[in-house]
Amino acid sequence: MRKLVLATGNRNKLQEMKDLLQGLPLELLTLEAYPGLNMPAEDRTTFAGNAAKKAESVSLATGEMALADDSGLAVDALGGRPGVHSARYAGEEGNYEANNLLLLKELNGVPTEARSASFICAIAVAVPGDQTYLIEASCPGRITESLRGKGGFGYDPLFFFEEAGKTFAEMSPEEKNRVSHRGKALRRTRILLERLLK
Amino acid sequence: MRKLVLATGNRNKLQEMKDLLQGLPLELLTLEAYPGLNMPAEDRTTFAGNAAKKAESVSLATGEMALADDSGLAVDALGGRPGVHSARYAGEEGNYEANNLLLLKELNGVPTEARSASFICAIAVAVPGDQTYLIEASCPGRITESLRGKGGFGYDPLFFFEEAGKTFAEMSPEEKNRVSHRGKALRRTRILLERLLK
Repeated sequence: MRKLVLATGNRNKLQEMKDLLQGLPLELLTLEAYPGLNMPAEDRTTFAGNAAKKAESVSLATGEMALADDSGLAVDALGGRPGVHSARYAGEEGNYEANNLLLLKELNGVPTEARSASFICAIAVAVPGDQTYLIEASCPGRITESLRGKGGFGYDPLFFFEEAGKTFAEMSPEEKNRVSHRGKALRRTRILLERLLK
Repeated sequence: MRKLVLATGNRNKLQEMKDLLQGLPLELLTLEAYPGLNMPAEDRTTFAGNAAKKAESVSLATGEMALADDSGLAVDALGGRPGVHSARYAGEEGNYEANNLLLLKELNGVPTEARSASFICAIAVAVPGDQTYLIEASCPGRITESLRGKGGFGYDPLFFFEEAGKTFAEMSPEEKNRVSHRGKALRRTRILLERLLK
């Protein structure tokens, strides 16, 4: 069976990838299978650029197909920030609590109708001897005025999804995956992989 | 012969597309072949998102394969701005002179070593009955302290490409296409199209 390396060190993203790619005729590997492997710096200015860089680096190092994600939040009132810096917005990589508090602070006084935002997810699939395929999807929402819900991760407790009347952190994983940026991108990735495997 | 609609109203981009896609077994059409067709708003927060939106909209309206580009400049000292707003940075869509003057003003006093920037180009190819393929490429450079050169368009007179020791506006079209963000993206697009046409 062909192998696909899920090139992320983020356990939450890994779980969403596994949930949405299950049942494909592919052996899904994680980075744990490659102990010495270093991930490259995420220093591109776009989600797609960072995802491609990670997928290509891991594919090159392992010789296998590799899938990487880069995603984040673009807040309209902040001119698209935190954008590609979402995970390290408050300075420390992956400190969700600090990131959320900083976002609330930056939006302090901004009225509800001006708190629109998008979650964006870029997925890159690097295929040895072939090209890198890019997929990007987004989900519209708005930033709440306080943290709501215990599910999800990252900015989920602040991301209010209008149609559901809930934040992403108030949704079950299935509910969130149905509408989220990463859910949309991974479903399209699944279709792409099915075609590539034919 | 299969048709490909080049979904841009920008004559400079159109010329670069034609130069780099010539010789493919494809009839290249422009939007002039579809007088009533309206382009959608470029309201996404990413280059890839805008390119996909334009290509899909034109493919849907014409029933043909469509190729669209979204590109721009990300200046590190400005946190990635003007980004997806590059063409309307100073307020008026496509007013290059005003955009360049505003950029110089915003970087006033910023020393040479802190004026790094990237040109980014996302290309989307929407294929009826198939998916939308995304390609993204970037080119590193730095912003000069005054306008240099008469070639190119947009921010080219301010974009200094180290290896050549020139701004993009001081290069011939061939020289620029060899190293530019759009040149790189279009060469990858050409390979993609060759594969799709097989």
